[in-house]
Amino acid sequence: MRLELVNTGTELLLGDTINTNAAWLGQRLAALGIDVARQTIVPDGRAVFEGIEEAARRSDVVLVTGGLGPTNDDVTRECAAELYDLPLDLHEGVMAWLTDYFGKRGKPVNEASRRQAMVPRGAAVLENRFGTAPGLHIPAVLGSARGLHAHIFLLPGPPRELKPMMEHAVEPVLRGMLADGGAREVLYLKSTGIGESDIVDKIQVGLEAIADLDLGYCIGRGDVDIRLSGPRDVVAAGAHFVRERMGDFIVSEDRRVIEEVVVALLRERRQWVATAESCTGGLLACRITDVSGASEVLGEGYVAYANAAKQKLLGVKTETLAAHGAVSEAVVCEMAEGCLRASGADHALALTGVAGPAGGTPEKPAGTVWIALASGGETTEARKLFFPGARDRFKLLASQAALELLRRRLRGIPIPS
Amino acid sequence: MRLELVNTGTELLLGDTINTNAAWLGQRLAALGIDVARQTIVPDGRAVFEGIEEAARRSDVVLVTGGLGPTNDDVTRECAAELYDLPLDLHEGVMAWLTDYFGKRGKPVNEASRRQAMVPRGAAVLENRFGTAPGLHIPAVLGSARGLHAHIFLLPGPPRELKPMMEHAVEPVLRGMLADGGAREVLYLKSTGIGESDIVDKIQVGLEAIADLDLGYCIGRGDVDIRLSGPRDVVAAGAHFVRERMGDFIVSEDRRVIEEVVVALLRERRQWVATAESCTGGLLACRITDVSGASEVLGEGYVAYANAAKQKLLGVKTETLAAHGAVSEAVVCEMAEGCLRASGADHALALTGVAGPAGGTPEKPAGTVWIALASGGETTEARKLFFPGARDRFKLLASQAALELLRRRLRGIPIPS
Repeated sequence: MRLELVNTGTELLLGDTINTNAAWLGQRLAALGIDVARQTIVPDGRAVFEGIEEAARRSDVVLVTGGLGPTNDDVTRECAAELYDLPLDLHEGVMAWLTDYFGKRGKPVNEASRRQAMVPRGAAVLENRFGTAPGLHIPAVLGSARGLHAHIFLLPGPPRELKPMMEHAVEPVLRGMLADGGAREVLYLKSTGIGESDIVDKIQVGLEAIADLDLGYCIGRGDVDIRLSGPRDVVAAGAHFVRERMGDFIVSEDRRVIEEVVVALLRERRQWVATAESCTGGLLACRITDVSGASEVLGEGYVAYANAAKQKLLGVKTETLAAHGAVSEAVVCEMAEGCLRASGADHALALTGVAGPAGGTPEKPAGTVWIALASGGETTEARKLFFPGARDRFKLLASQAALELLRRRLRGIPIPS
Repeated sequence: MRLELVNTGTELLLGDTINTNAAWLGQRLAALGIDVARQTIVPDGRAVFEGIEEAARRSDVVLVTGGLGPTNDDVTRECAAELYDLPLDLHEGVMAWLTDYFGKRGKPVNEASRRQAMVPRGAAVLENRFGTAPGLHIPAVLGSARGLHAHIFLLPGPPRELKPMMEHAVEPVLRGMLADGGAREVLYLKSTGIGESDIVDKIQVGLEAIADLDLGYCIGRGDVDIRLSGPRDVVAAGAHFVRERMGDFIVSEDRRVIEEVVVALLRERRQWVATAESCTGGLLACRITDVSGASEVLGEGYVAYANAAKQKLLGVKTETLAAHGAVSEAVVCEMAEGCLRASGADHALALTGVAGPAGGTPEKPAGTVWIALASGGETTEARKLFFPGARDRFKLLASQAALELLRRRLRGIPIPS
């Protein structure tokens, strides 16, 4: 199956909006075993017709996003109908839905919105649960008179409308068109604490030896998703191999990020964590509290940016700071243990480092960070890491490593030296 | 000038990489007054030839990104040379540079890397300061024999290589092609605390009345950039109008984000700020410490997520919590004032709210937040705001509103009720 993606919208070409839809759709389609042959952005207006026509000449399936709204700029529906020479009929069901939608808001359906109930004759309506513009599926057979043979799907541009429609209305149709019925398994093994090239070294050759297994890597923010797809038993074999070779580095197999995994592990154990942050400046606590339900596992956190704050809030000793400097194993351990005492939590994570770009020295260059984990009744563990580069990336990777320290302790996995 | 953008790379179609280059280039070109007529992603391999050829038939300028590296997948250079029927010559200057680059790393230039020194005859080499693959400019005149008349620019895919090359090597050439020599001014007025539709109401009609002024809006994370471009005096007139109509909402005119502005204002005044966060869970402190030099203005911060932490760390009274609940004006003011006392800072920002999705009530639905600013010798000010929706967006907008409270106090601008 040859599939092309056409994204419409002048705002995408101006760079005012980043085209995240294309990447998201690419991932969903790759999971079905469908490669996107080409992706095009065309501006609002007549270019939409040209974009759809060219893609339809080359393809079996064309997914079009955007341009289904009520404004004059929105011409996707009309362009697709013109291409296959289909009249636009008022669709009773959509009109009733629009009338209800606007009625609840005390408004009539105005002329502009009424356009959204116009459907090319023979097209199927795809329900939009999160907006007013329905999606449309124009079957390939309707194009034969024009010498075209592509299924055209028209989808809304806003991601919160597009994504559920793709999952619930488009993917089932695409699966039906695939020889294997799209009966593929897709599994994402999310890894952290190991670079992409080391992952490749550990698993690539072995996975390539498994017939019918598709392999991809998706670089995230401090983690790498290993994507396995293919028939169910093949994916199971691949996953088994990955777990054997690098299971300790696998955070989740359901796309959950590490903060979600850590919060879930703490909730299961009914344990609390507290944070003592210098160089990450609150990012670690922020990531933990990004998870709904975090209030059951995090009661408090400290941002101890200045040395005076490390002493006052966490009881770091003047002598320790003087003897070792703020970025040292001794200080980070005192921070973690002081945080454990002050908070009364079960676990305390502490970080101190040089975020840069300023503040580095030859012994402690910008990018250096010490991370410690103190837990009631256990030895405090500390790690020194080095993340040179941009400040925001340093903070992200340092907080990621701190979460990984806690994940490993909660899972009983040794911490790499 | 008709310009198209061709991004090459299978990873973009698979969705493993989000195509941020396209948006960034779109913004740079819009600032020059050049609209991108179309953007296309083609996979690695023969499709690169087709993508460039089609774009070159339709355009005066084609910008191509990616596929200049040393691996077999990287065929952009060869495809462009074939299209204009140009032989590839070994370029002495590039070869010397590569020899030096690899020599410093103790390696010879291998056969694969040597391909990066091959230059289509007549093309200009564009220096790559951050990678091994040089960019190339194939002038339009070289295509005449093939009936093509497009300038083709080949640029590296990695953003840290692409961006400086675009700014230093491509934009000067494009400016030279423009009738006005690209002698345009571009100004970004960054606003916060006001929605896009309210901005449009305030300024759109007035700005449209200024001849030759181009206007764009770029929605950011909690802020909106108003982009004015055109001849210098026209942009100045537009900026004057915007300042008159909504000057209090303008955070910066040099693209600095609000945390950078606030840190700079505090440094000028040699003042300190401390943070007391419940619902934002550390994001406010994190954003302040994202700014290099933040250690001169932020010494400490508190994440007081649990009510017990609000009492212990910030001195919030049991009676106040009992009488008003944690999400209330009384509690947020006690948090801010307690934080000011505990930290000894000049200013203290406090937030308490319901991030959601759980935890809301009819009186205090998810999305409700109270924000307060206490400063030495001044009346504590508090604001109630409502940001329903996703949890991360709630945290972002709440922290943005807190920073805006402080920016306004530092600038002496009244806080809207």
